[in-house]
Amino acid sequence: MTRAYDRLETRFHQASVIGDALSMLHWDMATMMPDGSAESRAEQIAVLRGLHHQILAAPDLPDLLDAAGAEDLEDWERANLAEMRRDWVHAAALPPALVEALARAEAACEMAWREARANADFPAVLPTLRPLLGLVREVAAIKAERLGVDPYDALLDQYEPGGRAAAIEAVFDPLEAFLPGFLAEVLEAQRRNPPPAAPPGPFPVERQRALGIEMMTRLGFDFSHGRLDVSHHPFCGGHAEDTRITTRYDTADYASALLGVIHETGHALYEFGLPGGRWRHQPVGRARGMVLHESQSLLFEMQVARSRPFVAFAAPLIRAAFDGAGPDWTEEAQYRRGIAVSPGFIRVEADEVTYPAHVIIRTRLERALIAGTMDLDDLPTAWGEGYRRLLGLTPPDDAVGCLQDIHWYSGSWGYFPTYTLGAMAAAQLFDAARRALPELEAGLARGEVRPLLDWLRGAIHQRGSSGSTAELLTAATGRPLDPAVFVAHLRRRYLP
Amino acid sequence: MTRAYDRLETRFHQASVIGDALSMLHWDMATMMPDGSAESRAEQIAVLRGLHHQILAAPDLPDLLDAAGAEDLEDWERANLAEMRRDWVHAAALPPALVEALARAEAACEMAWREARANADFPAVLPTLRPLLGLVREVAAIKAERLGVDPYDALLDQYEPGGRAAAIEAVFDPLEAFLPGFLAEVLEAQRRNPPPAAPPGPFPVERQRALGIEMMTRLGFDFSHGRLDVSHHPFCGGHAEDTRITTRYDTADYASALLGVIHETGHALYEFGLPGGRWRHQPVGRARGMVLHESQSLLFEMQVARSRPFVAFAAPLIRAAFDGAGPDWTEEAQYRRGIAVSPGFIRVEADEVTYPAHVIIRTRLERALIAGTMDLDDLPTAWGEGYRRLLGLTPPDDAVGCLQDIHWYSGSWGYFPTYTLGAMAAAQLFDAARRALPELEAGLARGEVRPLLDWLRGAIHQRGSSGSTAELLTAATGRPLDPAVFVAHLRRRYLP
Repeated sequence: MTRAYDRLETRFHQASVIGDALSMLHWDMATMMPDGSAESRAEQIAVLRGLHHQILAAPDLPDLLDAAGAEDLEDWERANLAEMRRDWVHAAALPPALVEALARAEAACEMAWREARANADFPAVLPTLRPLLGLVREVAAIKAERLGVDPYDALLDQYEPGGRAAAIEAVFDPLEAFLPGFLAEVLEAQRRNPPPAAPPGPFPVERQRALGIEMMTRLGFDFSHGRLDVSHHPFCGGHAEDTRITTRYDTADYASALLGVIHETGHALYEFGLPGGRWRHQPVGRARGMVLHESQSLLFEMQVARSRPFVAFAAPLIRAAFDGAGPDWTEEAQYRRGIAVSPGFIRVEADEVTYPAHVIIRTRLERALIAGTMDLDDLPTAWGEGYRRLLGLTPPDDAVGCLQDIHWYSGSWGYFPTYTLGAMAAAQLFDAARRALPELEAGLARGEVRPLLDWLRGAIHQRGSSGSTAELLTAATGRPLDPAVFVAHLRRRYLP
Repeated sequence: MTRAYDRLETRFHQASVIGDALSMLHWDMATMMPDGSAESRAEQIAVLRGLHHQILAAPDLPDLLDAAGAEDLEDWERANLAEMRRDWVHAAALPPALVEALARAEAACEMAWREARANADFPAVLPTLRPLLGLVREVAAIKAERLGVDPYDALLDQYEPGGRAAAIEAVFDPLEAFLPGFLAEVLEAQRRNPPPAAPPGPFPVERQRALGIEMMTRLGFDFSHGRLDVSHHPFCGGHAEDTRITTRYDTADYASALLGVIHETGHALYEFGLPGGRWRHQPVGRARGMVLHESQSLLFEMQVARSRPFVAFAAPLIRAAFDGAGPDWTEEAQYRRGIAVSPGFIRVEADEVTYPAHVIIRTRLERALIAGTMDLDDLPTAWGEGYRRLLGLTPPDDAVGCLQDIHWYSGSWGYFPTYTLGAMAAAQLFDAARRALPELEAGLARGEVRPLLDWLRGAIHQRGSSGSTAELLTAATGRPLDPAVFVAHLRRRYLP
């Protein structure tokens, strides 16, 4: 007789394959699709999502989950069952009318946001943002009840399973206390010894692309299972056997695409390294969540690519790629440009030191808005206060203020903290890898990344979702997320 | 109360959208996908095909079809219902075990064929081809019974709905009688006045691609709803809102990719022109079948692109694209190279005059094999006899003989006749268009294709599958398929 658990595995396997097909349609939409087919692509995606949802919200699924829970299961099977239940909650908890209303509200608000941002006109987006936030709070309340957590945590759980605001505050608070003073010291040090100017270019796209591919290959990207293409917003898409990253090229600045490619390669290496075989299409075989995913991209972009040893290896390659010569191209110049700090209004342009401030501000604000302790009317003012306090800046308008990011206006609430939690996890994992591999940095200086990748595979990638983020991090580094490691990293790099 | 017919429309709409998603996955597989993801892509396609099949083979579908048949329907609805029933027969007629056995036999035989063709070793493919043919004959028998037609016609119906071998013989017989004598005359004329040699090149891929895009644009290809890419086997894929054609480039021969692009553009223009709105995702809104589809590609490749008026327009463009100069690049030289005739062993390399011989030989042979009046052991001998009789050639081995085409070895029986029926339909449609549009050829000489395209849209594209191929052709040209028009075209072009 087939176990209820095995019947669940069959269903979730099929849902996962449909998900992979969807990831290809999304990739194509961002990279290849002609403009005129947006509407038909949207319908294809809606139909496949509907079929995916039908599997996860099947009426007999709760009974199967209960029956499987009473069966004799191995550890990984039990972890898989827990992930299946989480999937089911997120898929089936909401009444169809709410799902539909949410989709419509998201589409309407995102459209209004594009225009409001262009005009730096926050009030213009309120008539669509207010109902959207109302629906998001409804979603949060329903899922909170099902998951037995706070409403904000229920939203967070969509991106970072098991994530809890209380735990986030425990690591954000010390960082928030540390950042303003540290930033002032870094800026003062930089004022005394300014980073060298970037070479003016132009840097031809074909050369940038060739350099990106060389770097990806060095980092362990497998081109028989992936691609590099161009899209307006860089991302890592596809699935474990076919991981597709994108970038965009600026002929005046080679570093932006190169570091972006390294970032997305970090995401891709996580996908490549996930457990295969029986776990490949099971929830337990997926990447753990956005915190660890971001930790893998930032580990390569921030911890590796901007480190002195790796720059020693990469600087001559980069110089050669553009036939560079002179003082702008020395290893030292490249290293110092890579760690230049410059407070600004825009999160996606922020350096490693100021980035957490952007995230902390947004996290505080979205928590208050979800909890209902702040009104949307007060958002621009509260935003400005946050920037003055943490970065010493006053945004001149809302376009470079609370209208800059798409997240809230497209319905993604509870996502922001994963960026900085990922940066902290990256510092902690790299620190642990250095301890475990005494030759690591000497190897990086020769471009040898394989030992680090092997360590990450064993410590993180191969574990899939078999434990929580905290459990995986503790197993890999000896302790849960610890802001002190990130702070120590910042001190060492920026105030040596 | 909802009509049974309307419920059917909803289901077939969803199936069509899934089909569009599948077409994108197929396109990606042929153009973009890294080699290592073949297996996972195969699984994605299998899962989506399974979902598509579930809709068409739903247990209550026959009852819905019967109930809808008793309802008050408009003409297009009734035609749609007939197409739905055909879809259902092809999807649901076969027992699942037979479908599975067939898929396995096709995969095994195609694999054996690749090696057998490389080694020119027909006996090596027999152990997999014999069981495959057995299963195909089983399929033919079951569908023949359901459709009330002969077994071969049931296979033909998969590609050319309503196609009948008897009707094909009626047009192939006179062609077969005509071809050998005509070919001898053409070759004699060519011997007296040989076509000029092709310029040696090289023709850089980027210039070929730019020329292809310019030509596609001239012919009416809408790049906001389609793309041009590279694949090993050129094809037209995607769907009406996103039609993607491919080609391959030979730097020693610009004409091959250019004419291939024009051919696939013909297919694409048919897809672009199909009825939209309510019929877009209904069976009645689809292209009528492979005969009319091939007629559209061949109309542009053979009737338009190789005509004197169009060459008068295109020759200077082509010369300029490659900075050509001298006698090899004159309009006359380009025209005469476009209509050079050269009997050979390989169908896909054949010219317009000898191509039908290749098709007639294959059609005769596959009919005999399906009927069981010939054994597979006798195929190479019968193949050689056909080539001697129709083309005066004896294939030196089976690699350039009966092993050259993938069709039979991948399970596609009943497909071959559509190529030549399409060529004949193309001649007949172009002839009708010339009569309907007295300025047509004068316009083509100035690169004006729009009047022809508009005529084709009204006569063929916009009709979808609202009538049979014979009905659409009769409405457009005044009579069903008439080999005399094709023969007259050949005489006029090749023995002026």
